[in-house]
Amino acid sequence: MSIKRLHANKRMSQVVIHDKFVFLAGQVAEDVQGDIEKQTKETLASIERLLGETGTDKTRILSATIYLKNIDKDFERMNSIWDAWLPEGVTPARSTVEANMCEPELLIEITIIASLP
Amino acid sequence: MSIKRLHANKRMSQVVIHDKFVFLAGQVAEDVQGDIEKQTKETLASIERLLGETGTDKTRILSATIYLKNIDKDFERMNSIWDAWLPEGVTPARSTVEANMCEPELLIEITIIASLP
Amino acid sequence: MSIKRLHANKRMSQVVIHDKFVFLAGQVAEDVQGDIEKQTKETLASIERLLGETGTDKTRILSATIYLKNIDKDFERMNSIWDAWLPEGVTPARSTVEANMCEPELLIEITIIASLP
Repeated sequence: MSIKRLHANKRMSQVVIHDKFVFLAGQVAEDVQGDIEKQTKETLASIERLLGETGTDKTRILSATIYLKNIDKDFERMNSIWDAWLPEGVTPARSTVEANMCEPELLIEITIIASLP
Repeated sequence: MSIKRLHANKRMSQVVIHDKFVFLAGQVAEDVQGDIEKQTKETLASIERLLGETGTDKTRILSATIYLKNIDKDFERMNSIWDAWLPEGVTPARSTVEANMCEPELLIEITIIASLP
Repeated sequence: MSIKRLHANKRMSQVVIHDKFVFLAGQVAEDVQGDIEKQTKETLASIERLLGETGTDKTRILSATIYLKNIDKDFERMNSIWDAWLPEGVTPARSTVEANMCEPELLIEITIIASLP
């Protein structure tokens, strides 16, 4: 069974599709200088754009892993953006933990597993 | 192909089922004041209950990601509970790393991917 | 649908196969005294060996989660080994975050989801 990749380079692919499953690389903000609200919005916009290119959408996310640089400070602020982003009743299984990321200014990274329609 | 969700609210679903795969939200202890043994037992009990509601069980866990707040101090104490919980020979692929969680008192969070029978 | 496990003990299985999906336990270096380059090479060698035993290979990795003990110091050094390891165009969706692991000397752990041919 074939594997399809989008935005693949020598290090990673932004999207990997196999069977009915879609794996996204960890998504981060475009502007790493933004605050947690801005970085969360940009991260979710990247996820939405990649899912759209794949032929699916945010109502078909199965699993989300959210990494926050400062979980005590930013958990509720991230949630305020997250909660407004998803239609009720189609929300994924979610885990949120604290971790530093590959650039010290990054405040959030999100890894997604979704499904094709 | 449809997606089924259990215990879904505006933020997340505790269970997401797609194809033959079951994704659980990160499970934590009910009593965040418990020590690592108590929190591990409660976390595993939540996993077992959610898998049961879904029509599967702990012998069909494919993958487990375990986050510990204090890995040096609690790794072996968590393992003593974990090892007794699973029948030998039906254990999942497992990763364990250290991370803070959304409440400072939480000592353990576990994310599960399982399969339906 | 059956689940197949390789190198299963009472705690975990190094490989779990279900449907066309392969889940590996978090892989680490054999020699925990090695530097990041050595530990990365040994970790990737373990992944390659386990995928080979399963009848698949590194060109069929769907998702990789990389945990680094010191992400600021070791991210580029890990990438230099990683980038040389994978043929261009068949790279997985990847997330990399900082975390401590179960032994303080461990500098890297990698969790893999792959597919059978």
